[in-house]
Amino acid sequence: MDKTILLGHGSGGKMTSDLINSVFVKYFDNDILQKKTDSALLNIETKCIAFTTDSYVVDPVFFPGGDIGKLAVCGTVNDLAVSGAKPLYLSAGFIIEEGFALNQLEEICMSIKTEATKANVFIVTGDTKVVKRGQCDKIFINTSGIGIIDPGYVDISEGKNIKTADKLIVNGFIGDHSIAVMGARENIQFETEILSDVAPLNGLIQDVLNAGHKIKFMRDLTRGGLATVLAEIVENNDFGIVVNEVDIPIRESVKGLCEIFGYDPLYLANEGKVLFVVEGDHAENILQVIQQNKYGTDARIIGEVTSENISMAILKSVIGGKRIIDKLAGEQLPRIC
Amino acid sequence: MDKTILLGHGSGGKMTSDLINSVFVKYFDNDILQKKTDSALLNIETKCIAFTTDSYVVDPVFFPGGDIGKLAVCGTVNDLAVSGAKPLYLSAGFIIEEGFALNQLEEICMSIKTEATKANVFIVTGDTKVVKRGQCDKIFINTSGIGIIDPGYVDISEGKNIKTADKLIVNGFIGDHSIAVMGARENIQFETEILSDVAPLNGLIQDVLNAGHKIKFMRDLTRGGLATVLAEIVENNDFGIVVNEVDIPIRESVKGLCEIFGYDPLYLANEGKVLFVVEGDHAENILQVIQQNKYGTDARIIGEVTSENISMAILKSVIGGKRIIDKLAGEQLPRIC
Repeated sequence: MDKTILLGHGSGGKMTSDLINSVFVKYFDNDILQKKTDSALLNIETKCIAFTTDSYVVDPVFFPGGDIGKLAVCGTVNDLAVSGAKPLYLSAGFIIEEGFALNQLEEICMSIKTEATKANVFIVTGDTKVVKRGQCDKIFINTSGIGIIDPGYVDISEGKNIKTADKLIVNGFIGDHSIAVMGARENIQFETEILSDVAPLNGLIQDVLNAGHKIKFMRDLTRGGLATVLAEIVENNDFGIVVNEVDIPIRESVKGLCEIFGYDPLYLANEGKVLFVVEGDHAENILQVIQQNKYGTDARIIGEVTSENISMAILKSVIGGKRIIDKLAGEQLPRIC
Repeated sequence: MDKTILLGHGSGGKMTSDLINSVFVKYFDNDILQKKTDSALLNIETKCIAFTTDSYVVDPVFFPGGDIGKLAVCGTVNDLAVSGAKPLYLSAGFIIEEGFALNQLEEICMSIKTEATKANVFIVTGDTKVVKRGQCDKIFINTSGIGIIDPGYVDISEGKNIKTADKLIVNGFIGDHSIAVMGARENIQFETEILSDVAPLNGLIQDVLNAGHKIKFMRDLTRGGLATVLAEIVENNDFGIVVNEVDIPIRESVKGLCEIFGYDPLYLANEGKVLFVVEGDHAENILQVIQQNKYGTDARIIGEVTSENISMAILKSVIGGKRIIDKLAGEQLPRIC
């Protein structure tokens, strides 16, 4: 019989320490985690750090292009990176349903290790809880992250320097993640396989920052999608945004499926997409830098900041109409990340 | 009808931002959280920090002496404090079951606020996920924590300086938390009400560190209880431990209930208890410092480190017998924290 997670694995006793040694320490292997102390002790180069947290409850746990482990690393790495920080250390807190297959847990931990290596971060501390059958759905993972931040970048996350004529850039196709997860959940066979875009974007973002051009704001386009981020940027601010629908990169296959299922792609969650707001004069140069990174080959300038339509994000449709983009109301796809 | 949590509260859209503003930012009120950036940006005094994480899945959510919110603050604060760190910042990641009462969420957030204030820490970043009914049990909370650590204390969490004749001190009665939670879960009426000991111990630990006596090791006695911690201390080390059963503070009421329910109090989880290993010559002085703090009035010296019984923790029973203390095998009480 295949081995499964038992309540004892969350007891804090012998079975917990066996699981830590045989799975977590084995896969996440690093000197800090090896010490198995109550807290990880970290030497940090700067005195300004970024700190973020996210819980991942994606359903299903495995989907085309990724799994909950890959998501848990990339999501938190990206939250740090869009703040202008260099991600360094992650925690991993597991809540596991009794009976979950041990080999699936190992597969998830292998994904975590692979993505952490790609993103150049370390899993330095963790926690495991096991709940009875039916008290959670398979596995939930929380990752919190710490990064260091150059004092020159601290304004980026608040977007205080955004002004008229700044340009908006997206690093590629939107909607892939949501459609991939939805398809796997509902067991739908697509003509063309759509893979989640889940990816660690800290390398891409570092390329852009290193190029020395003025970045005004960055945000990853996760739950709520591009539309919600656009609406949040203009909220309570003295500028507007105009986005050209024709310039927003969306795969034809994703467009088609959105029409069938009644989704608006602008509200779909992405896990490898970021919106950059950049100084207008530098937009073309920055676009080139982004396109040279493998996570940015399909990047486009999608719109700009305007002195008109104060506090409004406007979508100019393909046929020339205009509509106001608001935050996501209700919920299109629960448990997308 | 009372308001409940809906799937839309976890959408990342309008309802999420309404919930953040009306509950989380309202209760956890501080300048850093107010900014609602992807990551909290923190200025840290030192370049050595401690980082820890814990998920809380306690059942029931409210129990005598506390609730999941109080637990989520104290547990993570204590993990930092026993590492010799000064806790500063916490994250709060919520996974909530659709239909959970909004007023219960507010009560939990109020507890978080109260304990954070007591412990002098701030909730600076957070996340909210909502899953459908039946996909989690009411509410799970992850808190991760950051503290700063004095370079003089970095050896404490590994316990490398423990040696023969060091003394073991516990800051009060063990077992209360587990019995309080178990009683609430099973709806048992006790003759004497037993309250969870959940408390932030950073103040107590700071008192001890400030007194300048040599602390060799500290660990909070959570899942697995005192017994598991004792077994872990001796594991792969060239010393033993002898603990006197008669000196271990356990309430008569807890002892009686343990006999009825077949629990061994040494394995019960505590949320306000810490084991100190201290230099033998200073043990009485340190005991006095501990007893002067409100979370240490019932502290006792319970045993010592020996050159005999290498790698073994031995319990000397009241009647003079000896038995080896091993780590918790299996699970006595799932979802105790």
